[in-house]
Parts: sequence; C-alpha cells; structure tokens
Amino acid sequence: MNKYVKHHEWEIIEEGFHPNDNRVYESLMSLGNGSMGIRGNFEEDYSGDSLQGSYVAGVYYPDKTRVGWWKNGYPEYFAKVPNATNFLGLSIKINDEILDLSKAKEVKAFKRILNMKEGYLLRSFTIVSEDERETEIEVKRFISIVSNEIAAIKYSIKPLNYHGEITVCPYLDGDVKNEDSNYDEKFWNEIDKHSTQSFMDLTLETKKTAFRTTWASSFNATINNNFVNIDTDPILKDKYVASSFKIKVSKMDTLTIYKYISVVSNRYYDNNLLEEKAHEFLKEASDKGFEDLFQEHRRAWEKHWSESDIEIKGDIAAQQSIRFNIFQLNQTYTGEDPRLNIGPKGFTGEKYGGSTYWDTEAYCLPFYLSTAPSKIAKQLLIYRYNHLEKAKENAAKLGLRGALYPMVTMNGEECHNEWEITFEEIHRNAAISYAIYNYVKYTEDEYHLAEYGFEVLVETSRFWASRVNYNTYKDKYMILGVTGPNEYENNVNNNWYTNTMASWNLEYTIEVYTLLKEKYPADFYRLTAKLNISKEEIEKWQDIIDKMYYPHIEELDVFQQQDGYMDKEQLMVRDLPEAELPLNQNWSWDRILRSCFIKQADVLQGLFFLNHRFDLATKKRNFDFYEPRTVHESSLSPCIYSIIAGEIGYHEKAYELYLRTARLDLDNYNNDTEDGLHITSMAGTWMSIVYGFGGFRIKDSKLTLSPFIPKTWSSYSFKIMFRKRLLSISIDKENIRVNMEYGEELPIEVYDAYYDLKVNSPLNIIMKR
Amino acid sequence: MNKYVKHHEWEIIEEGFHPNDNRVYESLMSLGNGSMGIRGNFEEDYSGDSLQGSYVAGVYYPDKTRVGWWKNGYPEYFAKVPNATNFLGLSIKINDEILDLSKAKEVKAFKRILNMKEGYLLRSFTIVSEDERETEIEVKRFISIVSNEIAAIKYSIKPLNYHGEITVCPYLDGDVKNEDSNYDEKFWNEIDKHSTQSFMDLTLETKKTAFRTTWASSFNATINNNFVNIDTDPILKDKYVASSFKIKVSKMDTLTIYKYISVVSNRYYDNNLLEEKAHEFLKEASDKGFEDLFQEHRRAWEKHWSESDIEIKGDIAAQQSIRFNIFQLNQTYTGEDPRLNIGPKGFTGEKYGGSTYWDTEAYCLPFYLSTAPSKIAKQLLIYRYNHLEKAKENAAKLGLRGALYPMVTMNGEECHNEWEITFEEIHRNAAISYAIYNYVKYTEDEYHLAEYGFEVLVETSRFWASRVNYNTYKDKYMILGVTGPNEYENNVNNNWYTNTMASWNLEYTIEVYTLLKEKYPADFYRLTAKLNISKEEIEKWQDIIDKMYYPHIEELDVFQQQDGYMDKEQLMVRDLPEAELPLNQNWSWDRILRSCFIKQADVLQGLFFLNHRFDLATKKRNFDFYEPRTVHESSLSPCIYSIIAGEIGYHEKAYELYLRTARLDLDNYNNDTEDGLHITSMAGTWMSIVYGFGGFRIKDSKLTLSPFIPKTWSSYSFKIMFRKRLLSISIDKENIRVNMEYGEELPIEVYDAYYDLKVNSPLNIIMKR
Repeated sequence: MNKYVKHHEWEIIEEGFHPNDNRVYESLMSLGNGSMGIRGNFEEDYSGDSLQGSYVAGVYYPDKTRVGWWKNGYPEYFAKVPNATNFLGLSIKINDEILDLSKAKEVKAFKRILNMKEGYLLRSFTIVSEDERETEIEVKRFISIVSNEIAAIKYSIKPLNYHGEITVCPYLDGDVKNEDSNYDEKFWNEIDKHSTQSFMDLTLETKKTAFRTTWASSFNATINNNFVNIDTDPILKDKYVASSFKIKVSKMDTLTIYKYISVVSNRYYDNNLLEEKAHEFLKEASDKGFEDLFQEHRRAWEKHWSESDIEIKGDIAAQQSIRFNIFQLNQTYTGEDPRLNIGPKGFTGEKYGGSTYWDTEAYCLPFYLSTAPSKIAKQLLIYRYNHLEKAKENAAKLGLRGALYPMVTMNGEECHNEWEITFEEIHRNAAISYAIYNYVKYTEDEYHLAEYGFEVLVETSRFWASRVNYNTYKDKYMILGVTGPNEYENNVNNNWYTNTMASWNLEYTIEVYTLLKEKYPADFYRLTAKLNISKEEIEKWQDIIDKMYYPHIEELDVFQQQDGYMDKEQLMVRDLPEAELPLNQNWSWDRILRSCFIKQADVLQGLFFLNHRFDLATKKRNFDFYEPRTVHESSLSPCIYSIIAGEIGYHEKAYELYLRTARLDLDNYNNDTEDGLHITSMAGTWMSIVYGFGGFRIKDSKLTLSPFIPKTWSSYSFKIMFRKRLLSISIDKENIRVNMEYGEELPIEVYDAYYDLKVNSPLNIIMKR
Repeated sequence: MNKYVKHHEWEIIEEGFHPNDNRVYESLMSLGNGSMGIRGNFEEDYSGDSLQGSYVAGVYYPDKTRVGWWKNGYPEYFAKVPNATNFLGLSIKINDEILDLSKAKEVKAFKRILNMKEGYLLRSFTIVSEDERETEIEVKRFISIVSNEIAAIKYSIKPLNYHGEITVCPYLDGDVKNEDSNYDEKFWNEIDKHSTQSFMDLTLETKKTAFRTTWASSFNATINNNFVNIDTDPILKDKYVASSFKIKVSKMDTLTIYKYISVVSNRYYDNNLLEEKAHEFLKEASDKGFEDLFQEHRRAWEKHWSESDIEIKGDIAAQQSIRFNIFQLNQTYTGEDPRLNIGPKGFTGEKYGGSTYWDTEAYCLPFYLSTAPSKIAKQLLIYRYNHLEKAKENAAKLGLRGALYPMVTMNGEECHNEWEITFEEIHRNAAISYAIYNYVKYTEDEYHLAEYGFEVLVETSRFWASRVNYNTYKDKYMILGVTGPNEYENNVNNNWYTNTMASWNLEYTIEVYTLLKEKYPADFYRLTAKLNISKEEIEKWQDIIDKMYYPHIEELDVFQQQDGYMDKEQLMVRDLPEAELPLNQNWSWDRILRSCFIKQADVLQGLFFLNHRFDLATKKRNFDFYEPRTVHESSLSPCIYSIIAGEIGYHEKAYELYLRTARLDLDNYNNDTEDGLHITSMAGTWMSIVYGFGGFRIKDSKLTLSPFIPKTWSSYSFKIMFRKRLLSISIDKENIRVNMEYGEELPIEVYDAYYDLKVNSPLNIIMKR
C-alpha cells in the first residue's frame, strides 16, 4: 500500500497536491517539540478544506460535559487542549491577487516533505494564476527542539514569468475555532496586542482556566539573499494582529521572508513577564537567524537519532514507518515538565482533547525508558505522583478508599463521562503501579520508591482493597462491575486481567513495603507514619492476594476473560463478513457487547505485563484461544498480540500483527488520520520491534534478548539506553551483533546464554532458527 | 404527613399561599381531559417561581438527542410533548397596578382547591396592595371532559375598600419555553393570529413535525351578574394575541370575566379547517355559557365516579389519595384515540417528554380494563399494533429479527439513548405481549387475537428467538447482555424475569397459534401466510421454551435475579444509613450497579405477571429474599411488592408498601412533584388496593377475590367493570359484600368458594381472618 506518501527512508513525501486528502497530510506533516505543536497547515491563505491546528502544551480548557442522562459522580467538565493562535500565517498577494492553492489555475510540482532526520517541513510548488503568471514557492519551517519557545519559517517567492508587486502580510490569528467543542464555544479571550513595523505580539488567555499565552513574531525579507527595507502597515483586529508590506519583485528574483515566532505561556512565567519573555526569546532567535537556529535544531535531532534510531534493511516501508513513529513520539514528549503528558493525538489534532490516558503507562513508558535518559521516564511517574491527592478525591467520590486514577485527565481530575469507562475501567490503576515497577526494574532507581512510588502503591492498593468484594459462599475475593481493557465488554464481573493486576498491585506494594523496611528504614517509618499503614492492613492485602478469584475455562485450561465469557456464542473473526468490519461502525452496541469479539488485548495484556509469571505453554494456549476472537479495533491491540506471538514462536503471525499498526497513520488504515496521528499506539509499534522481534526483556534484573527477523527483512538494528549505557543491537539473517557504545560492563542474556558486555567490544551471536 | 395539602375526601386543598412550593401545587392542581392538559398556573400575571405548562395530546417535537459518546443505533432524536400556548392568561391591572401575587403587600385567605368530584379548580384570595387597597379574587376553571376542545374560566374581581378602574387583558401566549429542551430551542412557529373585539385566535405549528394547532378564545364580562359592554384594544405580538379593556368598578361590586377557549390541532382536522373548527367549537361553548358547560362536565365526572370510585372509610388520607390517583388517570387517558398513550407525567409536566413507556402495559392497562368499557383498553393495544412496523425496523437496526418495541416512544420510533436501556432493557417486549394476554383474559375478546394480537405475538417471538443464544456447553438457551426491570443492574446475563417472560411470550404465541388454527381457520391461514410462519419456526420456539436457562439460587430455592447476583455482597436495605438513601442521589452509578440493592420489582414482577404459575410457598420464599434488598427507588415498585405481600398473607407489610406510593405526589415524598405527577405509578396504587387488598384476580377465566382489610381502615369498597358488568365490592372488618349493579349472571370465586352473582342480588361473605 502506497496510497498517501512516497516510501523513503527519512522523509514523508506528498508528491502532487491532494486537496481532498489535505487533512490527512496536515496530520502527517505535524511538527512539535513537546512544548507546542502545529499541524501541517499552509502559511499562505488557503480556502480549501483544512483542519487548522496549533497547540500549546499544558494549556487546557474545561469544556462543558455533554451527556444524555447524568449519573452521580460524573465530572463537571471535559478538559481539552484548545486550538490556539495560528502563528504560521503569511498572507501573500501578487498584484492584488491572493495566493491561494485552492484558487490557482494550476499547481505544478507540488511537494510537501517532512524531513524526519533533521526535523523540518519543506513545501515547494509552482502556482499558475488565471492570467498565466507563474510563481515558484518554497517554504521551510521547523519548531526548535533546542529553544522550546521558538518556531521559524523561511518563505520564498519567485516570479517566473513576470515582474510584479507582492503584498506580504505576516500575522498572528487567535480567533480560531475547535471543531469538536461541545457547544461551539470559543476558548480564548484577548488580553493585549501590538504591531509596530516588522514586529507584532498577541496575548490571549483561555476562558475559565486563565492560561495566558503570548505569541510574538518578527520578520524580515531578502531579495536574492540581500536584506531589503520594508515599510509596514499594522493591522489590528479582534484576537488578530498583522503587519503588511508591499514590495516590487522582478522576474526570476527570489523574495524570501523570514518569520520568527516565540510562544510563551504562564505555565512557565508570571503573567506580567509574558510579553517581556516572548520579546526576549524572539530577539535571541531572530538575532541568531534562520540558518543558525536550524543548524542547532538539526544537531539535536542528530543526537536523538543516534540514541533511538531503528534501522531496517530490505523493507523501506517498514523503515519509513518506524522512524515516523519514533520521530512523532520525540516531538510529543520530552520529559522536561512533570505537568505534561502524552495525549493520544499529541499535538496533531483535537480528538481526545490532548488528555492523558493509561496509554502512557501501558504503551509509551517503555519507549521513553529505552530511548532517553531515565529522568524523562521518571517525569511521567512524577506526573501521577503529583495527581495522587486528586486520585484520592476521585475514589472518595465513588465511596471507596485509596486512590483511583482518572481514565482521562489533564490536571489529575477525571474528565470522562461514560459510566462504564469512568467508573468501571478501573484496571488503569494497576497500570500506574505497573509503571513504577517497570521503571524501577529498568533503571534500578530503587530510591524512587521511597521518594514517590510507595505512596502511589499504597493508595492504589487501598483502592483495590475497598473495591474487592468478599464472597462468603466461595471464600474468594471478587471484583464486580468492571470494564477491562477490552472495552467491547462493559460492567462484567471478575475480568481476569483486572483481578490479576489488582492482586499483582497488592503483592508489589507488600514487596516494596518489605524492601523499604529492610533497606530504607528511615523512609519506611516516615512513610508508614504518613500513610498510617498498619500490620492489619498489610494482612488484609495478603488475604486478598491469597483468596483472589480468577475465572478460568477448565476444559481448555485457559484464563477466562471474565465470568460468563464462555456463555457467549463462540465465533471466530474469520467467520465475520468483511462488510461487518469494523464492528464498531456496523454493529449496534448491545450486539458488540454480547458477542465474544474482543476489541483489544485483555487477557493477553496481562500475559505481557506479567510475562515472567507464565510459561510459554500457557501463553500459547491463551494466544490460540483469544487471537482468533480479537478484532483489534483499538490501535493499541495488535502490538501486544505481536509481541506474544513472537515470544511463542509464531513469527509470521507476529509480523502480520506488527503490520497492522506500523503504518496505521502513514497509510491511513482506519480512515481517521485526518483527525490527527495515533501517537500513543506508535509506542506500541516500537515495542513490536524491540520487544517482539528483538525479544527484549528484563529478566531477574538482567537485560535479555531473544531475537528473530521477519522474512522480508534483510537486517534491522535498534538502540537501547539502559542504566546509563547505550546498546546498539543489529540483527540479520545469520547473526546478532550487540555493541555497547558507552557505559560500564553489563551482564546480558541472549537466548538464555549469559555474556558480559564491555564497551565497544561487540558480541556476535548466531541467530536461532 | 400533611405537609402540602389538607386532608379531604374529595378535594385537594392548598390553604394559604406557598410561593416556595408553587410548582408542587401547580403539579397537583393540573387539569386535563385526555386531549389537553394544563398545570395549576395562575391566570393573572405572576412574577414568582412557576413552571408554566400547557400540553396538547399527540403533538410532539423531535428534540435533538444529547449524548456524550454516540453509539451505533441510537435514535436521532428524542420526541417530547412541547409546552404549548398558555391559554389561561388574563392580565389584570387595578388603577394601573399589575395584579401579581408575588408583589402584593399581603395575600389573605388564599386557597387553591382541586375539586375531584366535579373536576374543577377553584382559587380564591384577597390581595392587599401597598396602598392598602384590598381586592377579593375568585377563579374557577375546568377543561371539559364532554367537549374535548373546550376550557372555560370564570374570573371574579371584587374591590373591597375602593372604587377603581380595572384593566383586563385576556390573551393567548404561544411564546413559551421548555425547561428541559436540550438546546434551549423554541418549538413553535407562528402561522396566523387575529384579535377583534372580544375574540382572538392564534395558530402555531411545531417545527419539523408541523403539528398545527389553533387556539381560539372569546370572553365577556359581568358586573354583579349583569353583562356589560366593553371596548377592546387588540394587541398582537410575536406568537401572542390579546385584547384589552378597561372598566370602572365600584367598591363591593363584583366584576366577572368569562373566558372560553377552544383548542384544535391538525391531529384531527386538516390545516385549512383548523381556524374554522376552533371558532365553531368556541361559539358553541360560549353560547352554552359557563354554567351549562360546567354542569354537563360535572355530570360526566359523576358517571366516571359511579364506575370507578374507591371508597375508604376510617382513613381520610388514603381516601383522598386514591381518588386523586383515579382522577388523574382519568384526566390523562380516555381511550378515544389509538394514537395516544399515557406519558409518565401525563399532562402535568415536561419530564420524560410525554412519551410512552412499558408502564402503560405493565401498570396502567389493568386500571383501564377495570374502570372503563373494554374499548378503552383495546385502544392501548391498537397503539402498539400500529407501531409494529416501526418495532420491526428497530429490531433490524440491532441486527435482529422480529420486532423490538421501543423503550420510549411517541410514534413508534425509539427515542431513548442510554445503551443499557435502549438496547438492553428488552423485557419491555414481553410486556406488550402480556398486555394482549391480559386484555383477552379479562374481556374474553378472543377475536382480538386474530385481528391484532397474533401479529404482535409472532413478531415479538421472532425477536426473542433471534436474541437468545444457544449455549452448546450447557445445552441451554441464554439471553445475554440485558437490563431487567431493576435498572440498578445493567448489561447482565440471564435476567430471570427477562428469560421467564421471553419463554412465556413464545409459549403464549404457540398457544394462540393453536387456538386460531382450531377456532379461526380462515384467519389462521391468512395470518400464517402473511407472516410466513413455518412449522420449523414453531418447533424452534418450542425448543427455546424447553431449554431456556433460568438462574436459580440452589441453597435457598429462590429464583436468582441474574447470573452472578449471589456473587455480590449480600446486604439488607435496613443496614443502609439513612443519609445514603435514596441511593440514586447519594451513590455513584458503579456502586449502585455492583451492590445487591434492587431498584424495583424484578423477579417479583414476574411472580405478579405469571401469578398462576407459582405457588404461595415459592412466592413467599422469593418475597422474603428480595424484599429486604429492594430500595423501591422507582415509583412503580412498591405496588407490586404490596400485591405479592397481600397474597402471601403479609398484610401489614402490604399496607406499609402501599403507603409508599399512595400519597407519593400529594405528600411530595420524592421531592420531585414540582416536575409533574407520577401518573403511571398511580395505576399501581389502584392495583395495590384492588389486586392487593381486594385480592382480585382472573383465575381459569373466572373473577376471583380474596380480600383483607388494612387495620386502620374501617371499610373500603371498589368497582370493577368486567365483561359488560359493573361490580361493586365492599369490604369491612366482618363482611365482604359483592353486588352486580348491571350485567348478566356471573360465576365468581371468593376465597376459593364459587358463587353465582346475579344483578342486584348482593353476596355477603364473612371476612377471612
């Protein structure tokens, strides 16, 4: 499939202009730096279809909750990252005719290229007007990953067959809308604005939340690389500021406009400093100039790639897609601010409101753990630690003890309102605890438990202890009325995954309790006093662990997804008519619910998380049972199945499942890339390769590998940052090569054999067939 | 409890003005005639708190559906009976000061009285202005139950201590709002209006549905009963028409305004005839005059009471409440139009949109069967018959065969959108079939089955046959993913009531199939051909009946509400802290769902419906188990429990449960009477007395009685219309007296003994202790 973009190792290329798919390309061509992001919108005016999107990290708006029938405990609002000021804007008129790709007589040689290696967007085309004037345009832009506040645009205009007068009007437009606002509300109020000569700024503030942001911009122009003097006219409108100038350009001359933008919000500076800071950052950037800014930005990307690249030989589509995923993940989250997290669409669209889901802990954390210094992943844990009080309030609202982390959140408060999700998809709590376990296991940062982790573990354990239900008849603890990861079942009893992870959560808390007691007694006493933990409480947790009930299909020796799952008609996905897929677009909800079909990894999610507890035969039995019943209608599903398939030796199946997410956005599989990219599932694709194909695990605190190579690939390689070491792993048809680029000696395991890895002394191991 | 209204045998009395509870009294004082209804609003201007409400039967508006997350199969709209033109309006100014109870210096001797015996509302008070002018007001109004289009008002004004000029402005105001419209929309467009002298009319049309209605009104005035000439000024505004006049009134003179109103909708006449018809009805009414109109109206009520009154001696509060319930039921539905049905709030408020629920079949039908000629109840059945095609479309939407009747509807289309209700509360289908069974059993109108009933039975059976799920492991049919009558459980498997009623539905269909085959062969062949019924289909139904799965609690020999009910923590309502009740206002939804607490009769609803199938010991075991777990947070619940309690000899419990609904609205138990009255549950109260205390049943096609009398009552009596006979049953501490007021000889059973009842030859039977 090669429908949208040309295959290329480092670039995402739109060749020829596709106005009908413009939103898809806008999503694909998004740029971001963790602090802000923009979709691949055009700078010049465009009257065709477009989803204008510009987002400022951490700035959210509490939109009114829309619901049919209100239930007690629903949140009052649904937080979303609102669309913000369009700072790209650069209106162009040539001889008083607006430059607009939608109104051109012809558009020649159109290209939009996202360069992932160096992190910029390039667009070039020749536009032919009704009166046959031809103009060549080239635009390059980037959002700096060195200076978080800065974006820069270089916009070149070359009249090919005429002399003309060109009017250029750079602007900042804050009068934007959100397509999915619940009540067509606009979310920003104007605070201040200025426009003087080639400088402008605009300060807006979100309604209710009062997140104030200043956008400042300056520009200059060259003709054939010589700076020209310009005479500007300021334009001020509601939430809009611009500065316009006219310039005569001769045939074949190149007029280039450099536009610099700084974006500063009161998430980082006091309101009264915002304009000053925005001006300061802007001046620094414009003094540096476009080329120098770009070079430092490019070098930063170079470093990123040196630490996190995955190289695939023999499959250019796979190569392109994995780099695209790594690129987008790095654009979305940088770990610099513990108040930020990873929205399902990152900075590439409005859907899901930019909020945090359990995706972060379950899918994204392993990526950041392995491709960046550990402090980046730690920030994700601190994010949840900082929300602990809110999570306790959330549990109290439901009449329960301890902490229930929200399903969807911006600031720690729950902001989702389907009862079957909000109130019942409680397994998310265990994912928060699992992330702590995962982080500590990976980094050996054991003291994190004393600093942050234990409190979260205790409060989530308290939640489980109050949420379970002791069944006197069966002498078992049960968890009733839940929704598991498979959201195609609602309000079920004893979801195996939830019961398993709840019990695991309690176990791990007790383990950490014992560890702190033995190794960090001072912290132990401080924390047990602070949290008021008694022996009786620990005993109660142990009793729950000992008597937890797990549904099981006896005749098949398979974990049963929930009580009564086997009462359903047992059908296979392969028996479904093509026309009825995806089920969520073709079946009514009740039909989905009472069918045996599974949306996403549920029992298998448990096998993945608690990988070390289950032998291969168990994994195989469960995979064989559940895989044919799974429709993978969540982008988060195939990666988990792929990883398990790889582990149990179903290599072709693993590759087939990997393909289902790898190019999800690039090939617009689900026909929804126009809404934005599936950022969090991109981390799953990364896991499919590193965990799935590479067989990467941490076993008994040791890094282990157990790789295979997909048939169509000739080789692949990936990097792992592990405990202050950088490992480079290359796999081809014959050999596995493991090299440590820096760091101290490390014992590792490959295919159950032990090796001592020393810096720059590569291991060569024969591939297992 | 005597908080809101004075106890009185025939009247509902508000003594003294209660502006803070005005909405409660407005609900209680509602008037209606099955074709229209109004709340107890004031005629004169009132700036205090009020819920203005005026409704035209059968006129509905498809309001946009509001929902958080859309699910496939949801209806596009939610139909509601919109608030319509306020035709009561009569602005009064005295010496240019608006008469407004909310602005008076003092209100003396205020009374608002609903007279149920004669069907009118009376209001009287003396209003004292800031400058000490005292004015006595008396208003009487009624909505004719003889002429469905007519309402009349007599408004008297008497200056007690001054001479003055009084401005009177009768109006029709169609610029009304709906408090619970989803998007603050207004639902009516203006078509036409006129105002000439003492006559005016206003024609509006609902948006989208184009239900056009004309309100016409005329008025005249007397001073001390002598007609006076008046000079009027017409006033025309948007959706508003009025006619104002001034008149000088001397101290102690009585100015009386008679306002007549006709209301005619295009549900009955062509659009181009509406005004003409409205004028015709209006002229007829005003020619007749207020007193004559009232007398014919009063006589019609007299007849109603002679056929349906329940008299209770020794408990005036009980007497008042049962008459209030009978009165409101008769005001709501008259059976004249098969397109109409019974909204949960009748014509007394906006909530629930005036739509039809299964309440009609489950609770209301027995009332109308017993208190009115059988054609009235038959109309309720024809209503559903006429919606059969829509119900088939509804089933098809969910991927199922046959017909699924909607949970909430106006015209046969589903218009509710909580998935757990709309898609899963499918037991409603059996209630539609049960109503047919009930009607035929009661009336012996067997041919109804050939005319209407069988088609409904077949299509509902087909629905069940496609909705069940054959479980190969257990060789049983199951019904998964349902919500039973107890809506405090959602998406459960094998709700005992649903499985039981589904199987019963199939059985009854086969029974009727056999009956038609034997007794009505021509109809049988016509219908089996039309419906394309095969022997295989009947065999399949029989197989489902034979192998239906019923959850059961073995150790207690009790029907289990659903699979897994016994896995819940088994608590009793008596153990709940007072402050946590009602649960639906204090607990989050998930907590309610995973608790064992029951909202309303579920297993017991089945015991009530299929009363003849279960012996007393079974009923007792199930009552003993479920009653302590039931919170009765539906107004429809206690009546069923009360009836079963009566049957199994728990007479005090039966009375206690009866009290929970009997004065629900009069005493505003649930603190929601302000929204309107609980019309459908009023029928349940009637059943509590006739079925519960009276022990009325039809057994082997025979009318049977098995009465007891609550301790605090000295006697009670009720009427039953049964197969063209009118029976009057009186019960005191010693005796049961059964008299047939008209009709042919009837065999009846009292306490298992048989009697032949002859007209006006009362039976006297000793009460069983």
